[in-house]
Amino acid sequence: MKIAISGKGGVGKTLLASMLSKIFAESGYSVIAIDADPDSNLAANLGFPQAEEITPISEMKELVEERTGAKPGKTEIYFKLNPKVDDLPEKYCREHNGIKLMVMGQVKRGGSGCYCPENVLLQALVNHLLLARNEVVILDMEAGIEHLGRGTARAVDKLIVVVEPGRRSLETACRIGKLAQDIGLQNVAVVGNKIRSKSEKEFLISNLPGFEFLSFIPYDQAIVDADLANLPILDSSQRIMAAVKDIYQALLPTAEAPVTN
Amino acid sequence: MKIAISGKGGVGKTLLASMLSKIFAESGYSVIAIDADPDSNLAANLGFPQAEEITPISEMKELVEERTGAKPGKTEIYFKLNPKVDDLPEKYCREHNGIKLMVMGQVKRGGSGCYCPENVLLQALVNHLLLARNEVVILDMEAGIEHLGRGTARAVDKLIVVVEPGRRSLETACRIGKLAQDIGLQNVAVVGNKIRSKSEKEFLISNLPGFEFLSFIPYDQAIVDADLANLPILDSSQRIMAAVKDIYQALLPTAEAPVTN
Repeated sequence: MKIAISGKGGVGKTLLASMLSKIFAESGYSVIAIDADPDSNLAANLGFPQAEEITPISEMKELVEERTGAKPGKTEIYFKLNPKVDDLPEKYCREHNGIKLMVMGQVKRGGSGCYCPENVLLQALVNHLLLARNEVVILDMEAGIEHLGRGTARAVDKLIVVVEPGRRSLETACRIGKLAQDIGLQNVAVVGNKIRSKSEKEFLISNLPGFEFLSFIPYDQAIVDADLANLPILDSSQRIMAAVKDIYQALLPTAEAPVTN
Repeated sequence: MKIAISGKGGVGKTLLASMLSKIFAESGYSVIAIDADPDSNLAANLGFPQAEEITPISEMKELVEERTGAKPGKTEIYFKLNPKVDDLPEKYCREHNGIKLMVMGQVKRGGSGCYCPENVLLQALVNHLLLARNEVVILDMEAGIEHLGRGTARAVDKLIVVVEPGRRSLETACRIGKLAQDIGLQNVAVVGNKIRSKSEKEFLISNLPGFEFLSFIPYDQAIVDADLANLPILDSSQRIMAAVKDIYQALLPTAEAPVTN
């Protein structure tokens, strides 16, 4: 079971990724959660201790150099385009509450040289996780599907695009839908988040014709308050958790039987 | 006057960028607004007609090839690292309501080769706009400051980091603050957005020690409703516009006298 989650910044991708990870793990599945959005913090949402101190793969300079043959930050001309990565999940996954986590980090752009080696390593790692692992893989992405390609599209059981009642999030969803089509990814579904009223729900449905809606998650101030009070996010809203459990149930028909940890 | 705006996805960077652009333009300044966040739509916020149809610079394949000597999408080994860009603002700015707009677009990463030529062109263009232009330049960025470097840090009169009441936006602000320090950018200030209560304001202040707060913008459902009803965002909330005018006033001491259009 491979689930990729995308959508505009701020719509709640990481919340959905962390809640789905928790539900799959508690249901007996072996889960690898992948933080591929440098503008979020999946580790913190999952309650990992010292979440800020986890070194992302892209910042492991020696590893990048060892596997690609290119020194990060230098404009190297030759490096390996197919670095060895199959041992990396075991070496660099953190584990907490039965959920394995990999933090991919940012591919730096511009200014100080060509950083492609990190990119090549991350890409190979995501490919490996999607194509060659038996776990439930939950990929929390940026506002795009840069981590996916024609080669991995068939491995993704569901690309969930999160939207909120706001036009910009719909534009991002349409852009993602087109990118998905371009790489042959068919299994795209939308989740509407932060829904305050029936009219907001209808707004999303009427403005995204042609998209399958998987579910709607209500707005709940309790989750904002828990965040401000520094309380665990995942336990702060039963209403939201119930809605995400519905999403889990909807995803299940495509899931394999639980893999024993 | 060069203003760069950053912050976590969804906090309201584009709203602030568009309102500031409008206020500067209405005050007689010549304004170039730069959309450097592919996950937003500054053109739509500014009311440009057919905002979705503007081709971003990074997707102008012939231009990228002409200026850098490298074909986008190909793993070219040699290309110009200092492409000519000083004629591009005149050629590729759109104008609406007295505001010039450049849409930079996305630097694609991974999957299908090395896309550095687009990146080099965008970088050179941003450098030019910050270092060699007399207009008020308002740069709407992603959740980072990838478009800035040591060479442009001194040209930025103010880097505004937008935050909202939520811990993830504070983490992003701290990360941006560190990146700014790394490149010697001193003029960093925070704007708190979507403020619903005094306690939310205090939450932001107490959790961002060492940051200068420029202003606070209240939450106003009117702006969400206007967006859903497809009405002009910029005219939808007098409360928010008044708060952004305060920010404009606070920025003014560093601004040059208006440049006649």
